[in-house]
Amino acid sequence: MKNFKVKVLPTGMELSVTQGNTLMKALIEAGIYIEGPCGGRGTCGKCKIEVASLDTEITKLEEISNIRGESKLACRLEVDRNMVVVVPQAKVEESRKSLLQTELASYGRQGRLVKFTIIVPVPSLEKPASDQERLWGALHEGISYPMKVEALRILPDMLRKNKHIITVVARKGEVVALEAGDTTLELYGIAFDIGTTTLVGSLINLLTGEVLATQSEGNPQRVYGADVISRISYVDNEDQGLYTLQSKVITALNEIVSKLSEDAGIKKESIYEITIVGNTTMTHLLLGVCPVYLARAPYVPAFKTVADIRAQELGLKINPEGYCVIVPNIAGFVGADTVGVILATGLDKSRELRLAIDIGTNGELVLGSEKGLYACSTAAGPAFEGAQIKFGMRAAPGAIERVDITGDVRLQTINSLPAVGICGSGVIDAVAEMLKAGVIDYTGRITDPEGAIDLPVQIRKRIVPGASGFDFILDYCEGNGLDEDLLITQKDIRELQLAKGAILAGIQVLLEELGVREQDITKILLAGAFGTYIRKESAWRIGLVPNLDLERIRAVGNAAGVGSQLVLISEDARVRAWRIADSVKYIELSARKDFQDKFMEAIYFPQFR
Amino acid sequence: MKNFKVKVLPTGMELSVTQGNTLMKALIEAGIYIEGPCGGRGTCGKCKIEVASLDTEITKLEEISNIRGESKLACRLEVDRNMVVVVPQAKVEESRKSLLQTELASYGRQGRLVKFTIIVPVPSLEKPASDQERLWGALHEGISYPMKVEALRILPDMLRKNKHIITVVARKGEVVALEAGDTTLELYGIAFDIGTTTLVGSLINLLTGEVLATQSEGNPQRVYGADVISRISYVDNEDQGLYTLQSKVITALNEIVSKLSEDAGIKKESIYEITIVGNTTMTHLLLGVCPVYLARAPYVPAFKTVADIRAQELGLKINPEGYCVIVPNIAGFVGADTVGVILATGLDKSRELRLAIDIGTNGELVLGSEKGLYACSTAAGPAFEGAQIKFGMRAAPGAIERVDITGDVRLQTINSLPAVGICGSGVIDAVAEMLKAGVIDYTGRITDPEGAIDLPVQIRKRIVPGASGFDFILDYCEGNGLDEDLLITQKDIRELQLAKGAILAGIQVLLEELGVREQDITKILLAGAFGTYIRKESAWRIGLVPNLDLERIRAVGNAAGVGSQLVLISEDARVRAWRIADSVKYIELSARKDFQDKFMEAIYFPQFR
Repeated sequence: MKNFKVKVLPTGMELSVTQGNTLMKALIEAGIYIEGPCGGRGTCGKCKIEVASLDTEITKLEEISNIRGESKLACRLEVDRNMVVVVPQAKVEESRKSLLQTELASYGRQGRLVKFTIIVPVPSLEKPASDQERLWGALHEGISYPMKVEALRILPDMLRKNKHIITVVARKGEVVALEAGDTTLELYGIAFDIGTTTLVGSLINLLTGEVLATQSEGNPQRVYGADVISRISYVDNEDQGLYTLQSKVITALNEIVSKLSEDAGIKKESIYEITIVGNTTMTHLLLGVCPVYLARAPYVPAFKTVADIRAQELGLKINPEGYCVIVPNIAGFVGADTVGVILATGLDKSRELRLAIDIGTNGELVLGSEKGLYACSTAAGPAFEGAQIKFGMRAAPGAIERVDITGDVRLQTINSLPAVGICGSGVIDAVAEMLKAGVIDYTGRITDPEGAIDLPVQIRKRIVPGASGFDFILDYCEGNGLDEDLLITQKDIRELQLAKGAILAGIQVLLEELGVREQDITKILLAGAFGTYIRKESAWRIGLVPNLDLERIRAVGNAAGVGSQLVLISEDARVRAWRIADSVKYIELSARKDFQDKFMEAIYFPQFR
Repeated sequence: MKNFKVKVLPTGMELSVTQGNTLMKALIEAGIYIEGPCGGRGTCGKCKIEVASLDTEITKLEEISNIRGESKLACRLEVDRNMVVVVPQAKVEESRKSLLQTELASYGRQGRLVKFTIIVPVPSLEKPASDQERLWGALHEGISYPMKVEALRILPDMLRKNKHIITVVARKGEVVALEAGDTTLELYGIAFDIGTTTLVGSLINLLTGEVLATQSEGNPQRVYGADVISRISYVDNEDQGLYTLQSKVITALNEIVSKLSEDAGIKKESIYEITIVGNTTMTHLLLGVCPVYLARAPYVPAFKTVADIRAQELGLKINPEGYCVIVPNIAGFVGADTVGVILATGLDKSRELRLAIDIGTNGELVLGSEKGLYACSTAAGPAFEGAQIKFGMRAAPGAIERVDITGDVRLQTINSLPAVGICGSGVIDAVAEMLKAGVIDYTGRITDPEGAIDLPVQIRKRIVPGASGFDFILDYCEGNGLDEDLLITQKDIRELQLAKGAILAGIQVLLEELGVREQDITKILLAGAFGTYIRKESAWRIGLVPNLDLERIRAVGNAAGVGSQLVLISEDARVRAWRIADSVKYIELSARKDFQDKFMEAIYFPQFR
């Protein structure tokens, strides 16, 4: 797949976007919030932007008025060339107000890394101090330097070949590297989010905090198992399994590093730090730490935190003196990615009660405020990612992502291609609409068309006998390239019920732990790509979330990734992340007798929404 | 060469001795002081010990009285088999009183390393803390553990396969390694002294402070140059020179590690720390740090101190989590070995004024007391090591080591073999005796035999015309296997004058810096193997040392090596070593105009001794 550059004005941010993605998706992934109440269906017109080819010489804020581009809807614009887009000032302002951007903006440049040049005095017979001592004497106050052997090896020649001018790279007040001459303007880092399915990396200029480029790739471990449990089994059963999975992900991260540095036109040696968020299994695999006990009761991880690691030691190809910061995890199934979500959404600093739902391959829930947070994990994911659904598929071109049932069924697919399957948000939409239309009742049973005389005839025709009860035809095979009708089966609905039931029951356990009621929740934050694409009305209708005003529900995009960025640019954020990992109370649902009861009730759909 | 085991009772110490060495030499090298006023000539009889073959089952102190060995003189006993020797109690007591032993004994077990077992609680669904957190909870107070990835990799299985019992290895209050089961009794370290010519390593039980075995080997870098300057040239001129010299010494250190662990019957993995002393060039080469600027004015080293290094990083094969502590150096030509000498002789704590002279391949001088120390280095070494002397050789079998001239010349060679050359202490002895006998005058000129009517005829016959003036026949070729007479040439005497003149002038500069007189020196300590074998009367007679009562001159053996041992067993000693390196004032002689004047005067021999 080809990648194109998209320069976003007036921020100046440069994105790298894979061919075929919509501009809206790219902007959201890069953390730029762009309003789209219609859910990206091209109907509300609110995401209108200006676009021009990249050869248009527009680089500065002042020149925006000169742009003579076309006016387009970001949600409909497929990126098929290098381009400059102008996201009108008002919307950028609004984006700054978005939860994640506010967090990111609230941290200035308080990073761990600084660079400065020094001039080291020349030695003399009268003052024959060692190179090291003269260097120490020239260092800024408060900077210590327990010099490593590597630095001693390069120091003598470096001093003498560069007129005794060198650049010092210091990390947390300690020198980590010396460079010849003045390289102070080159200081970069990469924030990674290692998902079970997708790896995302953002290259950040550590001098300005600016995100210069973002790249994502599929997690190559996928071929060894779609979810964490199957990957753990692989490690358990294969001799070199752990090594294989570790080297796969490291190779992929290195590819992202290469692409990012190419995109931004910088040297890999100018990248000095990497931050990592990911679920607990992903961080275990990345470090080559055996994850098998995560899958056996009592499901404990090997570690919660790990000291900063030389990137080199992990085989990550950035500056040889660079470090890798692994954000700590909370528990076996609530990982560093959840810490990232909490960090980015500010749950730990919020005065009001908030609920964050991060649905990836697993579903992690966090409830609370500055007074305390509770978290749990539910095995909810696969159904939402299209797994275990008869026609389920990933959110790829041709996947049904929206369903409307009024009179007849209307579908929307990714890139408007003929439907080839249905992705997670499509399943939720389909079931919500089927519920609303009366195709299924609150127990989840698809109505027998014989007795369903209230249903429009076009709808009734779509209800057909299936393996267990009835199935519902979303798309007839004549309309697409498939050999059979594209169905939502009774079994699919049961899968969805199990998944959403687990999440709702988890929420109820957390509410009970905190001693609060549903209505006390002031905001429900849907994190992750899934949370971004889901139609919140549909999530509400099927009872995936408590019965609150829709205004209180908000999609926040890739919050885990933003958390990783925060830890990268700010030492304060890092300290906060460690505090979060230490203080969040983890609730192991399988250890609670009341969970099963709550779950049994929660698998039904709400009756009166 | 074969090595034999020598078990020393009542200390229980086990030495590894190379075939052909005398027992006395082995004892002295191992730090056991044994009296020998005759200088090892077998005449005073004070070094008498009991010896039996090792198969004699004597292992405990109480059984000493049972030994029925032979009575031998340690100075005459060549080690040619495994043996048990009993050094009578009185002499061991005395040995404890020796300067170095006192220092070694004054440090208890205050090492950096401790081992203890812990039982880590088993996790449960109710308390599903990570392996790491449960381990942390089980650690002793005051022990922190920023766990490294390596430890995380082994922890999960180690816990579960060893009933949750593990041994913790902590260093400076921080855990460095975890081991399965209880290994608390296995805790060893090796103190190295990396000399330009010889490498010495002592294996120490870190639980008891006991020296279990000592091994020495030639420094394999010798083939690339006998002294530091020629090795630096090699690095400067050869592409891979630095790498070659570094890997040579590391290979040799690893061989010593292997032999020591074999000798003592312990696993290399039970060795957790290595300490290193050596001159500045040797430590630069060991670390692979370019030493070329040491040989160019203003002769500055790259470093003074270096943070502790993972032994693995240097390729040293001990426990993979083990560390290597490099004792800091003072200046370009006053290295960590001198810090070791100061540490072992307690110069920095002495109330009275002391002078330490460490003559190895270079000659380092330290003068002072607890109020302050001054140090300098003189290029004195090679003559004392037999280099640049016509028949000079290392202290190997067949080397003349003692010379007496009364009536005629009497020689003593190492192992009493026919003379093949003369070693450093032999040269000093020869010149001192020639001075005393009147063969040379105070200017160093060998007397014309024509006018020397006061000399015995046997002596006059030995004075023969040479390349410059006259030479002196020490040994006629008929008496040994050589093709020519073994001479001390006029040029040899000039070489010795330059060497001893440099040392004496250096001492005078130090005296002047401190504002004290020769007579204020209460003790002159001769360190290094050379200092042990030199006849102090001879050193005094040729004016190598100031004109003080002989009682004030004392040989202290391998003080640098003992310093390395002190740093190994005691954190306090290490702190002291760092303080010494920081506080000793280094005098660069080449920067002082008065040095040349003092040197010109000091090359004459004393007229009235």
